[in-house]
Amino acid sequence: MPVQFGDDVSAVDLGSGKLAVIKTDMLVGKTDVPPQMNLWQAARKAVIMNISDLAAKGVKTLALLVSIGVPRGLKERDIVQIGEGLNKGAREYGAYVLGGDTSEASDLVISCAAFGIGEKKRLMLRKGAKPGDIVAVTGLFGNTAVGLKILLQNLSAPSRMRKALVDSVLMPHARLNEGLALAETGAVTASIDSSDGLAWSLHEISRASHVGFLIDKLPIAEEAKKLAKIHKLDPVELSLYGGEEYELVVTVKPRLWKKANEKVSLIRIGCVTREKTLVLKAGKKTFPIEARGWEHFKTSLSKS
Amino acid sequence: MPVQFGDDVSAVDLGSGKLAVIKTDMLVGKTDVPPQMNLWQAARKAVIMNISDLAAKGVKTLALLVSIGVPRGLKERDIVQIGEGLNKGAREYGAYVLGGDTSEASDLVISCAAFGIGEKKRLMLRKGAKPGDIVAVTGLFGNTAVGLKILLQNLSAPSRMRKALVDSVLMPHARLNEGLALAETGAVTASIDSSDGLAWSLHEISRASHVGFLIDKLPIAEEAKKLAKIHKLDPVELSLYGGEEYELVVTVKPRLWKKANEKVSLIRIGCVTREKTLVLKAGKKTFPIEARGWEHFKTSLSKS
Repeated sequence: MPVQFGDDVSAVDLGSGKLAVIKTDMLVGKTDVPPQMNLWQAARKAVIMNISDLAAKGVKTLALLVSIGVPRGLKERDIVQIGEGLNKGAREYGAYVLGGDTSEASDLVISCAAFGIGEKKRLMLRKGAKPGDIVAVTGLFGNTAVGLKILLQNLSAPSRMRKALVDSVLMPHARLNEGLALAETGAVTASIDSSDGLAWSLHEISRASHVGFLIDKLPIAEEAKKLAKIHKLDPVELSLYGGEEYELVVTVKPRLWKKANEKVSLIRIGCVTREKTLVLKAGKKTFPIEARGWEHFKTSLSKS
Repeated sequence: MPVQFGDDVSAVDLGSGKLAVIKTDMLVGKTDVPPQMNLWQAARKAVIMNISDLAAKGVKTLALLVSIGVPRGLKERDIVQIGEGLNKGAREYGAYVLGGDTSEASDLVISCAAFGIGEKKRLMLRKGAKPGDIVAVTGLFGNTAVGLKILLQNLSAPSRMRKALVDSVLMPHARLNEGLALAETGAVTASIDSSDGLAWSLHEISRASHVGFLIDKLPIAEEAKKLAKIHKLDPVELSLYGGEEYELVVTVKPRLWKKANEKVSLIRIGCVTREKTLVLKAGKKTFPIEARGWEHFKTSLSKS
């Protein structure tokens, strides 16, 4: 089997060094869709979730199939919204929704299967990180956690920031170009997206690669820092345990760091350690990075 | 696009005459799982549904991914049952469940994505039936409709028949060998499985191929006939509008009929007509074949 169980994608060997890379992910209304997210956005997000997983492996999604569970009470125009959201998400990343089916269900359920072709020797897995490798991310963290608090707990935010924070939740983006470019460089030893939170992603690489991490520079977004100050929130909590960020978390061979950074703007956050512990270093203090992450919020999209 | 929208599967051109063939189908507890079907059987069925769709196109399923929506109240041993049912269904047909994920949901939802490699020139589509072609099926119809009545309406049945009729519902089989062998012959001009009922399948081929059908020999199973007699049921209704049979419904070039029949035991039921009507001929009478089929039964697996 070209990709071990428990990685983000599965693969079938096509011969000649090529792999058919496939992935399914299910978006459930109750747990994955905040009340303010409309159906178009929910459908787009269902697509992005899958494209992001393939991107983290260095694979471009070519096609998507979608099975939709439709709760009673959804109207035809709602289904049209879902269809348009699915297509929008796919077209943003050069993919196509090729087909699917709808069934009646109690919840809104959007189950996507993404398909792409990968090069066996370029595939970036969860497994492969080596002690001494540099840990890096493709963007800053914390804004989605704040955005969710704005949406779910009515947290106030300065109007000039509010839209960007809320949009980080409602309109996620997959790091496809970054994933493809990083795979090209051959510099990356392990990779995952951060959809379940930075801490969780690090723990997944740790488990699969049998290594630990020393994180000495938390990649906290400016907006998240500001809101944390205003509302006395913990910026470490926001950036480590937030989730839904869809950034890439990668480990990079030190001698190819420069090469990787020429292709993709990476933010160095620490290094891979032999000791299998995950440690955050802040000044002279160290803290364990816990294996917890994005917890689904429990709200019901429909009132049924 | 190698396969048009609305066919049973989707495909991505891999070059060199090969296609990546993919399909998703969602099994929803509420509508697809009779109360007497256990989780192991439901999971197995979810896999068979997809393998059958690829088989009808002449493609062997290599790998499956599964997204499971788990209702609250399911125990760990229930999830194990689901996993074992999925694997059993896959292994019966030489396929592997490569991965998947679970989410919390209100219903039991099992969404499978099936993947296989097909030869472009061998793919059997819904489109392609020509006037004069022979219409044939791979098995007899009616037993699943009776089996469902036994399960849902407590219909009585002679004990020597009861198990087979109920098993036809709880333990469906996909016609994989038949599909692969038929694709090899090059004799088939259109193909579909009969999961939504014989009448519905004929209408799907009719729509996609722009042809009609004259059915002069209804393929009614002996058991269904007997039960129809005992309970004064309409055998035509049972065999045409039942559903969940997973037989193949194919149209065959007359000059290759013998060749096809040497490979697969086919039952001739009529012929393809230029006129786009679907007609059942019984003695000197004719009846329209209606575009209706398998209606999901509305029962809830869990009481929530």
